[in-house]
Amino acid sequence: SVSPGVLPLCCRPPAWDRAPRPPPSPPQPPGLPLAPCRSFSNNKIQVELDESSGVAMMKFKSPPVNSLSLEFLTEFSISLEKLENNRACRGVIITSTLPKIFSSGLDITEMCGKSVEHYTEFWRAVQEMWLRLYGSNMVTVAAVNGSSPAGGCLVAMSCDYRIMAENPKFSIGLNEAQLGIVAPFWFKDTFVNVVGHRIAERSLQLGSLHPAPEAHKLGLVDELVPEEKLMEKAAAVMAQWLALPDHARQLTKSMMRKAVLDRLVAHREEDIKNFVTFVSKESIQKSLRMYMEMLKKRKS
Amino acid sequence: SVSPGVLPLCCRPPAWDRAPRPPPSPPQPPGLPLAPCRSFSNNKIQVELDESSGVAMMKFKSPPVNSLSLEFLTEFSISLEKLENNRACRGVIITSTLPKIFSSGLDITEMCGKSVEHYTEFWRAVQEMWLRLYGSNMVTVAAVNGSSPAGGCLVAMSCDYRIMAENPKFSIGLNEAQLGIVAPFWFKDTFVNVVGHRIAERSLQLGSLHPAPEAHKLGLVDELVPEEKLMEKAAAVMAQWLALPDHARQLTKSMMRKAVLDRLVAHREEDIKNFVTFVSKESIQKSLRMYMEMLKKRKS
Amino acid sequence: SVSPGVLPLCCRPPAWDRAPRPPPSPPQPPGLPLAPCRSFSNNKIQVELDESSGVAMMKFKSPPVNSLSLEFLTEFSISLEKLENNRACRGVIITSTLPKIFSSGLDITEMCGKSVEHYTEFWRAVQEMWLRLYGSNMVTVAAVNGSSPAGGCLVAMSCDYRIMAENPKFSIGLNEAQLGIVAPFWFKDTFVNVVGHRIAERSLQLGSLHPAPEAHKLGLVDELVPEEKLMEKAAAVMAQWLALPDHARQLTKSMMRKAVLDRLVAHREEDIKNFVTFVSKESIQKSLRMYMEMLKKRKS
Repeated sequence: SVSPGVLPLCCRPPAWDRAPRPPPSPPQPPGLPLAPCRSFSNNKIQVELDESSGVAMMKFKSPPVNSLSLEFLTEFSISLEKLENNRACRGVIITSTLPKIFSSGLDITEMCGKSVEHYTEFWRAVQEMWLRLYGSNMVTVAAVNGSSPAGGCLVAMSCDYRIMAENPKFSIGLNEAQLGIVAPFWFKDTFVNVVGHRIAERSLQLGSLHPAPEAHKLGLVDELVPEEKLMEKAAAVMAQWLALPDHARQLTKSMMRKAVLDRLVAHREEDIKNFVTFVSKESIQKSLRMYMEMLKKRKS
Repeated sequence: SVSPGVLPLCCRPPAWDRAPRPPPSPPQPPGLPLAPCRSFSNNKIQVELDESSGVAMMKFKSPPVNSLSLEFLTEFSISLEKLENNRACRGVIITSTLPKIFSSGLDITEMCGKSVEHYTEFWRAVQEMWLRLYGSNMVTVAAVNGSSPAGGCLVAMSCDYRIMAENPKFSIGLNEAQLGIVAPFWFKDTFVNVVGHRIAERSLQLGSLHPAPEAHKLGLVDELVPEEKLMEKAAAVMAQWLALPDHARQLTKSMMRKAVLDRLVAHREEDIKNFVTFVSKESIQKSLRMYMEMLKKRKS
Repeated sequence: SVSPGVLPLCCRPPAWDRAPRPPPSPPQPPGLPLAPCRSFSNNKIQVELDESSGVAMMKFKSPPVNSLSLEFLTEFSISLEKLENNRACRGVIITSTLPKIFSSGLDITEMCGKSVEHYTEFWRAVQEMWLRLYGSNMVTVAAVNGSSPAGGCLVAMSCDYRIMAENPKFSIGLNEAQLGIVAPFWFKDTFVNVVGHRIAERSLQLGSLHPAPEAHKLGLVDELVPEEKLMEKAAAVMAQWLALPDHARQLTKSMMRKAVLDRLVAHREEDIKNFVTFVSKESIQKSLRMYMEMLKKRKS
């Protein structure tokens, strides 16, 4: 179970043991994409893989706020799995097509007035998404082009690198405590790995949503750039990470994240049971209904 | 033993599910306190609870330096227990009535020329105080209005938030190594949770007392304010923390601190035995006597 | 296994319980050293102990780049052991006699075209060096007067304090991933203890070599000084650390580092086996041969 001393590179040799890159492809007939590119789009997420660079763009496109519904989470996990199994794909940039919002987090309608079976299925899907993303072998870069509370913050934190639009109106954080609920232990573990124990303790207790500049100062995001430069910067960061031999990078990533991933795997059923018990309580159902009504009123 | 995924709010509903606050109480007859307020004062610590805000003031008033004697520690634990069990109390601000000193830490006279039974009782009281304070369900804010070495630093670090008077003559730190002794492992665990491993390693080995500005830079205190603004700021911070629903905040706090609390609970008797064995040694007794004589000479 | 509450000072009493220092030694006849001083020099490392101050200088002098060969590592461990057992020695300053390089890390020729027995012996020597240095009872200060990649960075990180020449051409870091290999778990543990989880995760995956100013900003080195002031500063820092009573400082250091040291001790044979299996692979042998050829070409 302990990471070995020094490990082999397999997937890709280091820079000094690599054949020169093939020359760029010949010009394509007009109307066709310039680079070989596969894309698949479902209802909630659009995925485009540029096979020449090995980089996939994953765009959340589920109005109004990219909330993580069961359907969204299922698509997300399937998309990650497809890319993970595609040897042509080495990295993913995750962003949103919606203005001002990256993702609003877990969809509360999934937790309200549904059956025990539904709650079970929903929570397993939340876990599945995180296990795939936090444990991905690919380089994952979050291009956070809007606010990103709760589960949205989790998605960003699970990537290898976070770039955020430097708009102080965009905020990010685990604000569960504000809603009277508690972030799951593996949200907390992920948060501590990013910002350290003290900042996590304070931010989680206050349910803080940090404006982009503050999030950067705390280390919750790695870099701020003007919104119009976000995708360009994400591509540059991705290129920097892809310059490393895949296998060594993957094993290093696994060495850093394994303890926290293993902890959820070991307590997965217990974690589901806790969630279902909680959410099935009448008091909680009432609170969630009132919260949703408040959201509706705000909108109108 | 693992924190559950999402947990119920019980004690207090979130902001959107809460009855409007009752109107302010009618004016009181002159001479009576304006707000309903219970206070109890013992020899060493004065406690005033403002039931309208739910905030207690706990003031150390044991001249000359608020040292943590057996009597002080016992009063401290009892006061915390009373407040913890009082549903009207949601938060505590801890400060000192003495000028220039918050608390000087453990009382050395309790470790000198006493019986094994006394050392055992004393050390258990030190543990008890920390278990109650670090594990408190209440919001705890330290208003550090003077120097705070060793055990005094532990008290401050065990709170949820530390505000310090920005006087560079006031210092704070775990300076045990300067006296030739070693901070207990749970002092160290608390320290690491606040400032991280590297800063703790260096500061503990050097037995550093950090002047307020340095303590702030290291993250050992969260904020510096001019001394005359200290209590006002503490009240504002408390109000910010109390704006959160209690139960979610409490469960979040417990999730962050449980591992370190559990570690002392699991090794409590062993820790007492270690302390008693150490302090009973003639060489240590001699050192402590010489140290106390030095302190007396300094005073005169 | 838990560190005790408060522990005795034995080796050396605290400042307030110490006889006045003996007066400085009388002037020596010309041609003799002014202070009593023992030195021993092997092929790769020169060691000079100033018995009056209790401080040893340990100078790496193995051109061209102080690489950590089996012979170097063996000398290093023996030198540390000698000093550790010499009651006159309380601290060690580690530096390099070579311009521009502190140490280039593990010697790749030891991993190439050798027998399984050789790989086993080599890896055990790497472990041994780290266990002695990271677990040393002496105060250890790294005066990093040149670049310090990979194993060189490990040596610096294993000291109590790191001062680096403020030359931006000098860099330091665990760049194993750049070579397609993975830093052993105990390199990683040491790194996390110095810079925290997030910085370690990013830096290890990218195999980053941080220029001195960046290394300082990340906390990888504690201080930057102009190169000509490096030894003077190292002596001043050493004096500051030696002002503390040895025994309390040693127990505190052990309390901070024990978990990570114990982890290698518990998995030592497994770690050796992993290394030998890896390095014995033909694909890895080929990669290492190509890398060495590239280095040769660069030199000429």
